[in-house]
Amino acid sequence: MQDYPRDMTECERGRRRVVIEGVRPEIDGGRFSIKRATGEKVIVEADIFADGHDSLSCVLKYRREGNEGWHEIPMRSLVNDRWRAEFTVDELGRYLYTLEAWVDHFKSWRQDLVKRIEAGQDVSVELLAGAALVEEAGARAGGADAKQLERWAGALRSKQQDLPHRISRALDEELAKLMDKYPDRRLASTYAKELAVAVDREKSRFSAWYEMFPRSCATAPGKHGTFKDCERRLPYIASMGFDVLYLPPIHPIGRTHRRGKNNIVGAGPEDPGSPWAIGSYEGGHKSIHPQLGTMNDFKKLIAKAAEYGIEIALDIAFQCSPDHPYVKEHPEWFHRRPDGTIQYAENPPKKYQDIYPINFETDHWPDLWNELESVFLFWIKQGIRIFRVDNPHTKPFVFWEKVISEIKKNYPDVIFLSEAFTRPKVMYRLAKLGFTQSYTYFAWRNTKWELTQYFTELTQTDVRDYFRPHLWPNTPDILTAYLQSGGRPAFMTRLVLAATLGASYGIYGPAYELYENRPIEGGSEEYLNSEKYEIKHWDLDRPDSLKELIGRVNRIRRENSALQGDWSLRFHDVDNDQIICYSKHSENSANILLMVVNLDPYHVQAGWTALSMDALGLDPHRPYQVHDLLTDARYQWQGARNFVQLDPKIVPAHIFSVRQ
Amino acid sequence: MQDYPRDMTECERGRRRVVIEGVRPEIDGGRFSIKRATGEKVIVEADIFADGHDSLSCVLKYRREGNEGWHEIPMRSLVNDRWRAEFTVDELGRYLYTLEAWVDHFKSWRQDLVKRIEAGQDVSVELLAGAALVEEAGARAGGADAKQLERWAGALRSKQQDLPHRISRALDEELAKLMDKYPDRRLASTYAKELAVAVDREKSRFSAWYEMFPRSCATAPGKHGTFKDCERRLPYIASMGFDVLYLPPIHPIGRTHRRGKNNIVGAGPEDPGSPWAIGSYEGGHKSIHPQLGTMNDFKKLIAKAAEYGIEIALDIAFQCSPDHPYVKEHPEWFHRRPDGTIQYAENPPKKYQDIYPINFETDHWPDLWNELESVFLFWIKQGIRIFRVDNPHTKPFVFWEKVISEIKKNYPDVIFLSEAFTRPKVMYRLAKLGFTQSYTYFAWRNTKWELTQYFTELTQTDVRDYFRPHLWPNTPDILTAYLQSGGRPAFMTRLVLAATLGASYGIYGPAYELYENRPIEGGSEEYLNSEKYEIKHWDLDRPDSLKELIGRVNRIRRENSALQGDWSLRFHDVDNDQIICYSKHSENSANILLMVVNLDPYHVQAGWTALSMDALGLDPHRPYQVHDLLTDARYQWQGARNFVQLDPKIVPAHIFSVRQ
Repeated sequence: MQDYPRDMTECERGRRRVVIEGVRPEIDGGRFSIKRATGEKVIVEADIFADGHDSLSCVLKYRREGNEGWHEIPMRSLVNDRWRAEFTVDELGRYLYTLEAWVDHFKSWRQDLVKRIEAGQDVSVELLAGAALVEEAGARAGGADAKQLERWAGALRSKQQDLPHRISRALDEELAKLMDKYPDRRLASTYAKELAVAVDREKSRFSAWYEMFPRSCATAPGKHGTFKDCERRLPYIASMGFDVLYLPPIHPIGRTHRRGKNNIVGAGPEDPGSPWAIGSYEGGHKSIHPQLGTMNDFKKLIAKAAEYGIEIALDIAFQCSPDHPYVKEHPEWFHRRPDGTIQYAENPPKKYQDIYPINFETDHWPDLWNELESVFLFWIKQGIRIFRVDNPHTKPFVFWEKVISEIKKNYPDVIFLSEAFTRPKVMYRLAKLGFTQSYTYFAWRNTKWELTQYFTELTQTDVRDYFRPHLWPNTPDILTAYLQSGGRPAFMTRLVLAATLGASYGIYGPAYELYENRPIEGGSEEYLNSEKYEIKHWDLDRPDSLKELIGRVNRIRRENSALQGDWSLRFHDVDNDQIICYSKHSENSANILLMVVNLDPYHVQAGWTALSMDALGLDPHRPYQVHDLLTDARYQWQGARNFVQLDPKIVPAHIFSVRQ
Repeated sequence: MQDYPRDMTECERGRRRVVIEGVRPEIDGGRFSIKRATGEKVIVEADIFADGHDSLSCVLKYRREGNEGWHEIPMRSLVNDRWRAEFTVDELGRYLYTLEAWVDHFKSWRQDLVKRIEAGQDVSVELLAGAALVEEAGARAGGADAKQLERWAGALRSKQQDLPHRISRALDEELAKLMDKYPDRRLASTYAKELAVAVDREKSRFSAWYEMFPRSCATAPGKHGTFKDCERRLPYIASMGFDVLYLPPIHPIGRTHRRGKNNIVGAGPEDPGSPWAIGSYEGGHKSIHPQLGTMNDFKKLIAKAAEYGIEIALDIAFQCSPDHPYVKEHPEWFHRRPDGTIQYAENPPKKYQDIYPINFETDHWPDLWNELESVFLFWIKQGIRIFRVDNPHTKPFVFWEKVISEIKKNYPDVIFLSEAFTRPKVMYRLAKLGFTQSYTYFAWRNTKWELTQYFTELTQTDVRDYFRPHLWPNTPDILTAYLQSGGRPAFMTRLVLAATLGASYGIYGPAYELYENRPIEGGSEEYLNSEKYEIKHWDLDRPDSLKELIGRVNRIRRENSALQGDWSLRFHDVDNDQIICYSKHSENSANILLMVVNLDPYHVQAGWTALSMDALGLDPHRPYQVHDLLTDARYQWQGARNFVQLDPKIVPAHIFSVRQ
């Protein structure tokens, strides 16, 4: 491998003296693109240097993929041979960037000239050398600039003028600027790689999701909810401030080996089954469960939701019930056991006879891949642009890389959320290969140390260039021990943490706002009487509902751009392990929020902060105001050390707006 | 860029489920080779994982470059999807390594079978599935193994045998071993890169250099020393235990603009000039300064030195005096100023009229490169295998990369030491592109904090894979402030630090052993009456010479393999900032040395150690003996906390051999 372009002749190569290395951002040597949302910056840094002591010029080059011609941004030198420049991505799709640098003989000459003059040396020969460089630039320039450079070269040489005059002409800033326009780049070094940026819409960075089972939305208890019922639920969801409504699979549900309430083997005739047991004689992944309504009803729901500023997200789970049409039509896509039966899902010793996993090792994989890709395309045609992908880590990485990149070529606005709760490197790989957002370990990070470690990794390391965290305090599968035991205060705490640590977060409701926390027996994270296996009827008007707190938090998120991104996150010390304190600020630092959260759902906790005034951009010698956007209380603070006290029974958190 | 081989058909690609990433060691994405000495290990780690929960098998593959066929080493799984294996490089030259991994269906099957049996499930169908896998392996095997696998498949299926018997056959370790020999690797993933190891001889890691001006070796004061005089000096050098004798340039010295004593402009007729002003009518880089002797004398010196176990290293400085034959024969290799004169060396406002730098940007660079490469080849033919390269950072990187790699193809035993005292990234780049060893910032790292930071970077980070530090407490150009002010104790301290922190180190003598420390006026690091510009006569028998201490330290290095490498270096705390404490151990930990050095050349310093018993491999509950190899004193120590006290006037350091 070489770091010069391969088509360069041997002859040119030997004189390209500049080295470009240590480029950032660059994921796995350029194998994967970095991610940005429209309007965001790409700040590029690199180590750029040459032999000797000559001055260099370096440019960052970028273009939208498919467009001809690079835009160039001059890079500025930091310290220790590090250079930096940035560009903003405005359009959806993909951008490319790379670097170019060259030894700048005019800059070197000018810099040396200053030193010689300061040392009182005779510079008449040097002026002639400079004139030659200016003349060469003139030959490159053409037009009016060419003439001007020629005149300038003449002035540097002129025997009519005295030396001081010629020197002042040589050091004229105007000349330096003009010379900068016509550098000699014949021996420039180009970085060997063109690195890619995947540009998504803003929602990829900032959104609040609400997960809800449509079948539990009926107005009367015991009835199977419909998309029409979902429409009626929209004002409620909008009042809490969510902008994505995510529905578990809406397809026909299998009958064979259907699970009953609480996941028992053998369902009764009234049991509705799990929506993830996809497919029946009524259809598969491109069909709608008849009890929910028609395709037309679904489209109406999409349109109605849009009126409330809410987008519908679908769940795509590539697995089949034994009744799925694929099983008959494409038995070759499933693994057959030696006894002739089709292999059901297993995690030995557990068996899931109601689910057939797809065999991605089948010889017929190209057909299979095409069909699965067509499932996304089908729903995209119905108007869906957000997919939550179920268990992507049990399907081959290459499959996702191909499907996502092909879909995004035509639909760059599509968002794919990876629901992979698995080992860290697998989760990161899925993000690298194209998933727009990713579920995280947030649900199981409860202590101050855990949260600080994890969110520092997610927001302050290279991970942030490809992995966009999506935070869920609960899901239909995950009722954590913290929520089980901590009751209503725990739900408040985790809501505030999710909504302020993560610009993207979601809750599974109404279980969340009604702080449903009864687990099934046996210490698992499964809900008792889980909505996955039965229809629920939720009392949304319960006076203890958290819906108002949630609405307030989401309003704060919308009104404070500090909470609309993750990269500004900084943790601050507090002398109490039960209190966590962190800040976020907007890009221009006009909006600064400081969160203080009591992690103990049982007791009042108090402590003294040790704020990093520097990270907050505050003058440590002047007082400042902190305004709690949750309670509207205002305090006058001074310096790093301030007293905080939080009662989990009332509100376990401050979300302070900070102003000096 | 893709991480699967490019010749793989689309059809095969889709089913290769294993990902290999995060490979270490790998320098700049595989752009450069790592370095090892013969007999050293290459420990390779990688993140290897697939979708789902199948078991994987992974192998590390390596071969000597040029040899057909890979050796394969099974990798073992660590934690968090990390895998590791290692191989040893035995021969000089280059090795390649890469990785391959695959989903191992038999391993997965076997692992699941155990879980099913533990859960009391009926496994009769699973046994049939296992039999099919065994049968397939048999088809791959051929010969006796094929027959045995066929029999085994039969046993798993056999209806004559009861289930428990068939299960015990299925889980037989013998079967697992046999199956391991014939894995199904059709869908294996191969790491896309073949990474390289440059294997040098042991001296690249462990050597003690002595730099000496041959012209100062005459027996009588005022006489110009010769190679014959150098021969007479060999027993002295050998008695101090050095194994490399490095000579500044031995070529004819220019007369034009020759510098006089203390680098003054305008030499007198008796001034010998700087050996770095290379070339006169008597010859250039392939000639010998006549006053030193003939080529035959030089070869005799090489042979005589070898008898003392000493190898001669030459200084290669690519620059010319105005009298160098190149200037007349190849004026196109030099930069011409507008007034027609040739550009002399400058670092404005400083001028060096006695030196012409070579213009590497010349259009005639291919000829130039060939000529310069031929300089190395010329001296290699005379028997030289070690080159100290002067200021490589002022010549293009690509030049060095090409020259070094071409020379090492035919002469893999050649050692190139990079004398680049410049910015860190430039120094590291020179090491990456091929220099065997590199000068370091050691001379200017004096405090405990500085030494700890710097040597942790050099020995405990990825830097160590390509940058081999060579430590010099002084050189003819560098008389540090510490040595200037600290006198004899400072020279003792810096000697012990260099010789124990660095497996490779060197001194410029006899200035060093005679602790010559008078600087020229003006606060610089130049010696007063520098040997660079005049012939010196040293009194080697001065009773205060450090030669005996140096001899002792070098003997300790030879007798203790702990000091023959740098990677085991660990720092230990001492509650006194003037005392530094660190340990090194041999690969098998049989040899453990603990260094305690007083950095204060003026005062007795004492303190309490806080040793990491773990790093030393010591049982904290049992006493151990520390034996000072410098003074022969022995102490009984216990635990981490022990008292140390060092008088710089006597011996400012302990070099303890540790035994429990």
